Amino acid sequence: MSPVLTLEDIYRPVQETLKRVPSLILECLDTPVPKMREMVYHFFSKTGKLLRPALVLLGAGLSRSLQVGSKIPSERNETAELYLAAATEIFHAATLIHDDIIDSAPLRRGISALHIKSGPQAAVLAGDFFHDRAVETIFRYGNDGIIPIFLRTAGEICEGEIQEISEKKNINMTEEAHIEIIQKKTASLLACALQTGALIWGADEPSLAALGRFGICFGTAFQLVDDYLDFKGEESEFGKTLGSDLEEGVYTLPVIRSLMSGDRDKVVRILYSRNQKRRFPMLKDLLEKSRALDYTLQKAQTFIIMAKRELEYFPLSDYRTSLEQLADYVLERNR
Amino acid sequence: MSPVLTLEDIYRPVQETLKRVPSLILECLDTPVPKMREMVYHFFSKTGKLLRPALVLLGAGLSRSLQVGSKIPSERNETAELYLAAATEIFHAATLIHDDIIDSAPLRRGISALHIKSGPQAAVLAGDFFHDRAVETIFRYGNDGIIPIFLRTAGEICEGEIQEISEKKNINMTEEAHIEIIQKKTASLLACALQTGALIWGADEPSLAALGRFGICFGTAFQLVDDYLDFKGEESEFGKTLGSDLEEGVYTLPVIRSLMSGDRDKVVRILYSRNQKRRFPMLKDLLEKSRALDYTLQKAQTFIIMAKRELEYFPLSDYRTSLEQLADYVLERNR
Repeated sequence: MSPVLTLEDIYRPVQETLKRVPSLILECLDTPVPKMREMVYHFFSKTGKLLRPALVLLGAGLSRSLQVGSKIPSERNETAELYLAAATEIFHAATLIHDDIIDSAPLRRGISALHIKSGPQAAVLAGDFFHDRAVETIFRYGNDGIIPIFLRTAGEICEGEIQEISEKKNINMTEEAHIEIIQKKTASLLACALQTGALIWGADEPSLAALGRFGICFGTAFQLVDDYLDFKGEESEFGKTLGSDLEEGVYTLPVIRSLMSGDRDKVVRILYSRNQKRRFPMLKDLLEKSRALDYTLQKAQTFIIMAKRELEYFPLSDYRTSLEQLADYVLERNR
Repeated sequence: MSPVLTLEDIYRPVQETLKRVPSLILECLDTPVPKMREMVYHFFSKTGKLLRPALVLLGAGLSRSLQVGSKIPSERNETAELYLAAATEIFHAATLIHDDIIDSAPLRRGISALHIKSGPQAAVLAGDFFHDRAVETIFRYGNDGIIPIFLRTAGEICEGEIQEISEKKNINMTEEAHIEIIQKKTASLLACALQTGALIWGADEPSLAALGRFGICFGTAFQLVDDYLDFKGEESEFGKTLGSDLEEGVYTLPVIRSLMSGDRDKVVRILYSRNQKRRFPMLKDLLEKSRALDYTLQKAQTFIIMAKRELEYFPLSDYRTSLEQLADYVLERNR
């Protein structure tokens, strides 16, 4: 068993470039309007895992390493990498701001969510503004391959989120429908980050397809582990309230799986119970007994195996190793 | 005094093309997700004035009529006109959906606002989705001149709206600050519609600048008349609740002007009064006496004069006449 790597270890091949992303984010969101500036600085006073910018840079690195004459640096493409990484994080931030309004989430990265800090009205507009600036930046630094992928992904994320809302409290939701939602709302942006990064250096169709499949499988596993941790994690480490999806009526894979087991009637009774306080521990207990939590983790493992297989398409490189480690990291982060 | 023209009369040079826009809007917003489709059809079950698509088409017509060899039709450009007109209306719809959430407005075009019909969570996502599809369409049919103008405008609208929120209940707001907000949140999209339409047919810099100034002046007058009607209109004709800005703490030009008059103290007392029911009629009375309402209308007239002057740059054509009539129409719509 290899020792658990930190994200910093994993990001090493792109670490120097990644460090420059936070200040570029602020540059892209520069505005003369004081209230907007205040919101920009509040939101980015805590940086997240920077997973999406890292994926842009890793996709770019992987693609660049495949190029003939790759030793000739292109200043233009290096600038594009940086701005595309920043724009992807800004776009992600826009979706988080609107998500937090939708979910009435009080906290984001351990500080007040923007709609709590500045009011829901200003937060709706801030999300729109972040989104617009992200698109503007992508248009400025992207190319004819990059922009359509990005815009299509933005639409998919909205569709996935609407599907999630539509399926709230549906005790008959299938595993397939749930996986489709996850792939649209979470995995698609991870795939997009890798592909658009690779497209800066003119990646060919088979590389793009492999990166797309890696991103979707990796992102699906990422979300499944999140759903697992929503029951099994330590609140202090997980950084958000356990059972929050359940309270919102969003049934994730552990619940869907247990609804398909012999315990269905018991699960339904718990889901419909009015005793909010007892609902979560009772359900958690049942999900453990019915092995629905184990099943979720196994499913995530399967997706990670599929993801890693896609990387075999690429010759060995630091970037490829980094993506492999990132895939393993997703499964290990529950510890 | 010329007889009052209807919008249909005014739109005549582009009427045939404009008629095709509503079905294209639905095409651009096509989605396999039932709840999203339901929202699309609800929102567009009532079409508005289609002012923005009309401006795209009029800008395009004006620019096309200036071209050498304009008699040779270009199918590609004609398609672009249509999709750009649809995309601009979809983009406008996205801002209306988020605005209605922000203002807690129950009605839009006489039917339930989307956040009432489908819930605020779904409505936030619908706004995002409309916005994304608008940008996608503009990217597909626009060109390198069109896309940056459109994206810059999108950012300006957000900034203008945030400024409006920041200035709520500010009894010291200046007329200049208010006009700046109006120009960002309302007028900029009208200017953008004209300019992007003109750019389909390769308009030159002076034409674009003239259309931009026309759009800003015309849009400012349009909003000032709206603010006037918020006090003076007939609720049945105006189609929205009178005094709604006041209730939201948004002080428009009539209020700002009266706050700068000898009646300032009286106005402040009314604005701070807790008697919601009496506040509006008392204020309306005072605004009439202090001639602040007349002043607002005069200001709108001044902007219309400036707007029409910009059209003199263009040779006489049906399109130019149409824009002149549209400018007059804005002042007459209070009747």
